[in-house]
Amino acid sequence: MTTHIGLLGCGTVGSTVAEMLLTERVLLEKRSGQSLVLKRILIRDSEKSRSRNIPRAVFTTNPDDILKDPEIKIVVEVMGGIEPAKTLSMRAIKAGKLLVTANKHLLALHGMEIFRAAARVGSSVCFEASCGGAVPIVLALTRGLVANDIDQLVGIVNGTCNYILSEMSSTGKSYATALAEAQAAGYAEPDPTLDVTGGDSAHKLAILASLAFGVHVPFEQIHVSGINTIDDMDLRFGRELGYVCKLLAIAEKHGHGISLRVHPTFVPQKHLLANVNGSFNAIAVVGHASGQTIYYGRGAGGRPTASAIMADIVEAAMGSATLLFKQLPLLTRRSAARLVPMHDVSSRHYLRMMVDDKPGMLHQITGILGKRGISLAAMVQHEAHEDQFVPLVIMTHEAPDGKVIEAVAKINSLRGIRSKTRHIRVIDPQS
Amino acid sequence: MTTHIGLLGCGTVGSTVAEMLLTERVLLEKRSGQSLVLKRILIRDSEKSRSRNIPRAVFTTNPDDILKDPEIKIVVEVMGGIEPAKTLSMRAIKAGKLLVTANKHLLALHGMEIFRAAARVGSSVCFEASCGGAVPIVLALTRGLVANDIDQLVGIVNGTCNYILSEMSSTGKSYATALAEAQAAGYAEPDPTLDVTGGDSAHKLAILASLAFGVHVPFEQIHVSGINTIDDMDLRFGRELGYVCKLLAIAEKHGHGISLRVHPTFVPQKHLLANVNGSFNAIAVVGHASGQTIYYGRGAGGRPTASAIMADIVEAAMGSATLLFKQLPLLTRRSAARLVPMHDVSSRHYLRMMVDDKPGMLHQITGILGKRGISLAAMVQHEAHEDQFVPLVIMTHEAPDGKVIEAVAKINSLRGIRSKTRHIRVIDPQS
Repeated sequence: MTTHIGLLGCGTVGSTVAEMLLTERVLLEKRSGQSLVLKRILIRDSEKSRSRNIPRAVFTTNPDDILKDPEIKIVVEVMGGIEPAKTLSMRAIKAGKLLVTANKHLLALHGMEIFRAAARVGSSVCFEASCGGAVPIVLALTRGLVANDIDQLVGIVNGTCNYILSEMSSTGKSYATALAEAQAAGYAEPDPTLDVTGGDSAHKLAILASLAFGVHVPFEQIHVSGINTIDDMDLRFGRELGYVCKLLAIAEKHGHGISLRVHPTFVPQKHLLANVNGSFNAIAVVGHASGQTIYYGRGAGGRPTASAIMADIVEAAMGSATLLFKQLPLLTRRSAARLVPMHDVSSRHYLRMMVDDKPGMLHQITGILGKRGISLAAMVQHEAHEDQFVPLVIMTHEAPDGKVIEAVAKINSLRGIRSKTRHIRVIDPQS
Repeated sequence: MTTHIGLLGCGTVGSTVAEMLLTERVLLEKRSGQSLVLKRILIRDSEKSRSRNIPRAVFTTNPDDILKDPEIKIVVEVMGGIEPAKTLSMRAIKAGKLLVTANKHLLALHGMEIFRAAARVGSSVCFEASCGGAVPIVLALTRGLVANDIDQLVGIVNGTCNYILSEMSSTGKSYATALAEAQAAGYAEPDPTLDVTGGDSAHKLAILASLAFGVHVPFEQIHVSGINTIDDMDLRFGRELGYVCKLLAIAEKHGHGISLRVHPTFVPQKHLLANVNGSFNAIAVVGHASGQTIYYGRGAGGRPTASAIMADIVEAAMGSATLLFKQLPLLTRRSAARLVPMHDVSSRHYLRMMVDDKPGMLHQITGILGKRGISLAAMVQHEAHEDQFVPLVIMTHEAPDGKVIEAVAKINSLRGIRSKTRHIRVIDPQS
């Protein structure tokens, strides 16, 4: 049997998918039992130079050449962004095509609409490549762990941030230097905003949490902070205390609700997540029967992302995608997530204050913390060097986020506090 | 729709599967779209006390009550061992039942026969739980990485061995002490032979390699050595050189052939596999498009194994199992593996000799190595303590296994060598 495929977009990922479809036909036919034929690729600019491996005849600038071609069964959306990706994806679904997409941004914001449209017409949406690149995390959540109630999902899901933090940690570079080098090496975009502010991680968290907990996740309610405020000094103090800083996307059960958040986090050095370096991704999932499982691999790049897209294409071609899409947790359990507000989430906290080296400061600070029921687990203060301001580092026991935010504001208002107190949450992922 | 299930066996795993089917009906129905009903459980001894959560009426000692019941669609084999598991599994398949099995021993030895029998009648065999417990590694190899040519698979697939080695490494205990404690803690069987000699790891390797490379693996040709000859002294020297010892199951391409082996291996401390501790499993897979991916989780135990079996039951009930089984690499590419003999496999090597503390020994040893083209990468010799015999540790550069085995035999025959030279292979897994 022959299955015809149309691609929407031909950037890094799209052209790699196209090349794999063209050059690995034998392998793909063996694995899928189908002849997978790349029929058309939608491009915006017909003048741009393209891979020589792709025959020019497959390119088109007219979406109808794909969406109105009855022979094309699978449409692969690799344009990214919201529009025109959304309109074209919805048109593909309504035309009865099976949709494969890598677009986390689109799914995080409009996933429910797209999934329901597909369910209505008996089509399917595959989106393995939207989270974790080559890592088959969607497969693990929807299939491998299908019999589990998920308690917690903790992931390093943005390779750019992990690359920058790894570089800062291993070399002592500042954030600005590490970012500039990441851009030069191609690990960060010229405009890295969506990555470094945590937005991209939050997109992926919205998708993963909706699968893990079978609920609709209101994207805008995810607590998000990025790595762009991280000071290399704090990475050094963290290491001294036995921690490594990672940008984590966290989804976990809290009583009857779910807490969803993205923030820089200190992870104990011995934990596997602390040892995930460079542009790699890793997602730890705790199921009630499985216990902890972790999935690790390249989270971005043409070939790793294409690897996931090809797996989706194979499933769509074989017919299993439609069969399994019907049971997608998102579709079967449509309740909206009951989100626990960030100020009620308890964790340990790292605080670094720049304090005037004079008597009484520590007494005042511990007073502010103690009054809010925040107790100290560890403290580091080195001797003052050039000036009379010294960093005072406190690691707290578990305390509600809101209480700590309140205490930090109070501490910042003290006389003798030089600059804004740095606050990094600490977690000990379940095992 | 209702799907009836019969269980063959009711040990730790079987009773956990039974309890999950009984107590988690709502969750399972949501996820599978089916009502999954446990109809019968085959037991050997009707007098043995059983979980109170399982109604006595489902137990039977007559296999026909399951195999000849037309209502039972899915048969789950959790007896373990070769017989009667093999005969009953084959009967189930021939009766048109969908088989779910956790039996790695059976599949490693007779998998091809069982798979082909199922393919002939249009049935399917699901075996996620046979390797890596809760870790969805079969899913990853057959689906997530379906578009990849696999270059290498390196796994810690036996929790008992990993527990013992982790204990020896972290506490300095001897092998005998660590084993006894593992037995007392329930991490090792009263008869641990199949685990500690590497046999169980080899069973899993046979299954995983056949999926990864799409070939029939002649089990008896896998090179196997276990952890039962590991001396704690070597773990200490390894650490000094920056390595951790793990029992690894390795399958990798060598030219046009495949090398398959299970042996204790030194892994660089910084590699994620070196940080997999206790009874956990982890499998690293390198695909040509995906790059390195790693899968980590609990490799044994009632609930983790049941988690994998339940996932298989859900796939079988939903109909996707039969659809996908047809494309199992094992069935579509039936060639036997071209195995590279162990003596042709190149790696680095750790050698520890107990040498007489007299002039000329090192000269003789380096002569033996040099003559076979084996060059030294590192050497450690501490001063002699109680007696005049001292451990001499050599880390070689890459050298063919056969040459090193030959050199070791020659070294052992030298005057001034106190006891058999210890030899541990070293790998630097691809990234």
